[in-house]
Amino acid sequence: MATVDIGTIVSLCKRRGFIFPSSEIYGGLGSTWDYGPLGVELKNNVKRAWWKSIVYDRDDIEGMDGAILMNRLVWKYSGHEATFSDPLVDCRECKGRFRADKTYELDCPRHKRKVIECQSNLTEPRAFNLMFKTQVGPVEEEAALAYLRPETAQSMFVNFKNIVDSRWRKVPFGIAQIGKAFRNEIVPGNFTFRTREFEQMEIEFFCKPGTDEDWHAHWIEERHNWYLRYGLRAENLRRYVQQPDELAHYARACTDLQYRFFPDREDQEKQWDELEGIANRTDYDLSVHSKGKQEKWGIHNEHATQSLVYRDPVTNEKFIPYVIEPSAGADRATLAFLMDAYSEKPGTDGEPRVVLKLHPALAPIKVAVLPLARNKSELVEKAKAIKADLQRHGIRAVYDDTAAIGKLYARQDEIGTPFCVTVDYDTLGIGKPKEAAAAETTPSSAAALTDTVTVRDRDTWEQVRIPVARLREFFAERLTAA
Amino acid sequence: MATVDIGTIVSLCKRRGFIFPSSEIYGGLGSTWDYGPLGVELKNNVKRAWWKSIVYDRDDIEGMDGAILMNRLVWKYSGHEATFSDPLVDCRECKGRFRADKTYELDCPRHKRKVIECQSNLTEPRAFNLMFKTQVGPVEEEAALAYLRPETAQSMFVNFKNIVDSRWRKVPFGIAQIGKAFRNEIVPGNFTFRTREFEQMEIEFFCKPGTDEDWHAHWIEERHNWYLRYGLRAENLRRYVQQPDELAHYARACTDLQYRFFPDREDQEKQWDELEGIANRTDYDLSVHSKGKQEKWGIHNEHATQSLVYRDPVTNEKFIPYVIEPSAGADRATLAFLMDAYSEKPGTDGEPRVVLKLHPALAPIKVAVLPLARNKSELVEKAKAIKADLQRHGIRAVYDDTAAIGKLYARQDEIGTPFCVTVDYDTLGIGKPKEAAAAETTPSSAAALTDTVTVRDRDTWEQVRIPVARLREFFAERLTAA
Repeated sequence: MATVDIGTIVSLCKRRGFIFPSSEIYGGLGSTWDYGPLGVELKNNVKRAWWKSIVYDRDDIEGMDGAILMNRLVWKYSGHEATFSDPLVDCRECKGRFRADKTYELDCPRHKRKVIECQSNLTEPRAFNLMFKTQVGPVEEEAALAYLRPETAQSMFVNFKNIVDSRWRKVPFGIAQIGKAFRNEIVPGNFTFRTREFEQMEIEFFCKPGTDEDWHAHWIEERHNWYLRYGLRAENLRRYVQQPDELAHYARACTDLQYRFFPDREDQEKQWDELEGIANRTDYDLSVHSKGKQEKWGIHNEHATQSLVYRDPVTNEKFIPYVIEPSAGADRATLAFLMDAYSEKPGTDGEPRVVLKLHPALAPIKVAVLPLARNKSELVEKAKAIKADLQRHGIRAVYDDTAAIGKLYARQDEIGTPFCVTVDYDTLGIGKPKEAAAAETTPSSAAALTDTVTVRDRDTWEQVRIPVARLREFFAERLTAA
Repeated sequence: MATVDIGTIVSLCKRRGFIFPSSEIYGGLGSTWDYGPLGVELKNNVKRAWWKSIVYDRDDIEGMDGAILMNRLVWKYSGHEATFSDPLVDCRECKGRFRADKTYELDCPRHKRKVIECQSNLTEPRAFNLMFKTQVGPVEEEAALAYLRPETAQSMFVNFKNIVDSRWRKVPFGIAQIGKAFRNEIVPGNFTFRTREFEQMEIEFFCKPGTDEDWHAHWIEERHNWYLRYGLRAENLRRYVQQPDELAHYARACTDLQYRFFPDREDQEKQWDELEGIANRTDYDLSVHSKGKQEKWGIHNEHATQSLVYRDPVTNEKFIPYVIEPSAGADRATLAFLMDAYSEKPGTDGEPRVVLKLHPALAPIKVAVLPLARNKSELVEKAKAIKADLQRHGIRAVYDDTAAIGKLYARQDEIGTPFCVTVDYDTLGIGKPKEAAAAETTPSSAAALTDTVTVRDRDTWEQVRIPVARLREFFAERLTAA
């Protein structure tokens, strides 16, 4: 099956409450997006699946959740203040501003042609720092300048010692964090692929120098498998090994996991873009935040209050740990899972129907409980009671009576709900209303069906009749998180 | 039992990995805090308990997760740009800046006395807008100015129609959101009680005018009970009805839930401060964001692209819904739950021991699995296998061998873990090492104890012997989320 293009996903997301353009009522705010009722559940499930596999299922990772606003010195010594920038060019004619290294992709709004064709009008590239600035506190001095963090990584480096001490951790171990980060992109775009406000899922794994290559290989494997486990198709995911000239100056190696985000681009190579980067950052990070002279990196840290040198409590050996960093985007992962879940198949009327085949652990709603008719209070009450019972036992269920049953099935398919439960007259063990009974050819045995419901499968559209009392068990078997 | 003071909690939080001062290695950044390994779990559990009771257990609320950066016009029409400010005064002598309405509480750093005593040195109060400013995109024009949202509420108002349309919602219904907000407080402080970066849990409940007082009463009751259900003590929680002169100009009523955050203050009245506000905001919010003239509120909205008037699909009646807003702080709730969970009792050595009696649903770790000795590989493997099995079945468990068993119990008590499981030689069905056996007075019947473990209760310190095969069931019964 051909992979769906982003445009189709944008439209589905708006129509069905996954993702809305932010501040839409005021014309938006260039490439910011709000996650709607289904989007917040999907994205939370992606984040939870990540956290589960990283923090809960392993024994060597601690989680944390750091502040977005940090002391400016963090960004001075991390190197972001001096070098976290993109090359910016201005068009002298239209006054537009563009990324010098991406001009081939851009349309000039004034000239209605590719920017590259305006080449003679462009200024020389200059560095534009991508960190958002703000002012903390009521004092208007340089000292109160702060940045919105452009990555979550740094709060894990500067908390390294706090976590070793409070949690009795020994190297090797890792710290994991999920949180918002901000980059003042010159040209955001492609839906939630590149936005100025985004959410990261990052791991900083600390290990002894010499073991770093093995750990790097371990994490590439782990992270690749994680995406496959939750539904990405193998043919849409690949590894890209960064070449020496692409690496950050401190990095020893970096492998990107790339997803086929742009299947409609003609150039096959441009169909792929970064989903996650897994870097071997050497001992750069803990070195630069350590008090004193760091000869290796040509840095003299005059502000840090301590050294981040680690002493092995068994061997007494001292070293600065190497860092392996698997850095994923929660928004990009969510988008990729949506794209690979998207499918169409002909409905009973022959019209194409959208079925979102999300992994059950990621699906926003696990079970929709539907009354056959919403004007019959017994049906409504029974359906609501079943919903409440499933929910009480930890199965995310909703009650829905906003349309006729066929339409409700179609809507639930479109939002990826694995199962629908229908409560009908047989469930109640009462006779059908005359008009409903008249429409049937063979009268059903009411007694045998009392306290049973129909369960419909999203992917096969098959329906089975199940006792209400067995529902929990039925779903527990089929929904157990991967 | 006397309520613990915040200072004791700050120290526990740092020592045991709940909350660290942010950017501590660089001297911090005035009142920002990082949630450490246990803090992130506790706070996430608080947020999940809220989301569960609001979004999952009810049938009339939709969740969402909006962007922090919004179009500036949102804040123009909400009124924040003009009026979201605190009165600021400068001291002419020490150059300090203070909140004019709070000077009685503050110490002047230069004068070493209460600011109120420097009264003659203070300037006239002027308005200081509390919204953090930043610049979006590479264009340095007024138009690119943006604010960090000072509340999550507004993205729910401006998405009202998106959610009605995509989720077929009818009034009455609500929207719920958890997310970061930022206020450039003149004087932050008291640990995580007042910080410039904080996390809100807000509901905007839309109802028909005339039903608003009943819904307001409903939500006050619901929210009050929620805190009690998860462990706040009734004597530390009270309702405070705002007086007419305290209300926002658009609000019809507001009841605060106050917690006894400052039990060590002499003045009883000052021991209480806001945990959550539950306001009846009338039709102000949806009116001001509606296109055109809003006579009632003296506003002409020239920028909104649509009206937020609601048409009842059954009666065809048109109205602007009233809003009931229960607005809670995730950080304040977390702090209150910590304070009321704190207890001390004498250990076996007579020294006071800290026991954090958190509700099981909030406890960062539910079960700690401990090997009796960490140098015996069979004990370690068995303990790790039990941890993995519990975790696989959704019970948050950790493996811990960082100290001797008595110390591990004490550490788990201190971080609120409801149960400890100890794996010993009997579990393995093998003989004890000679030295361990020699220390026993009555030899145990090894066969009968094979494949059983000791389970220790945090609150009673009682220990029971349970077959490994029954552990899951045992914990499932005792840990079911409220």
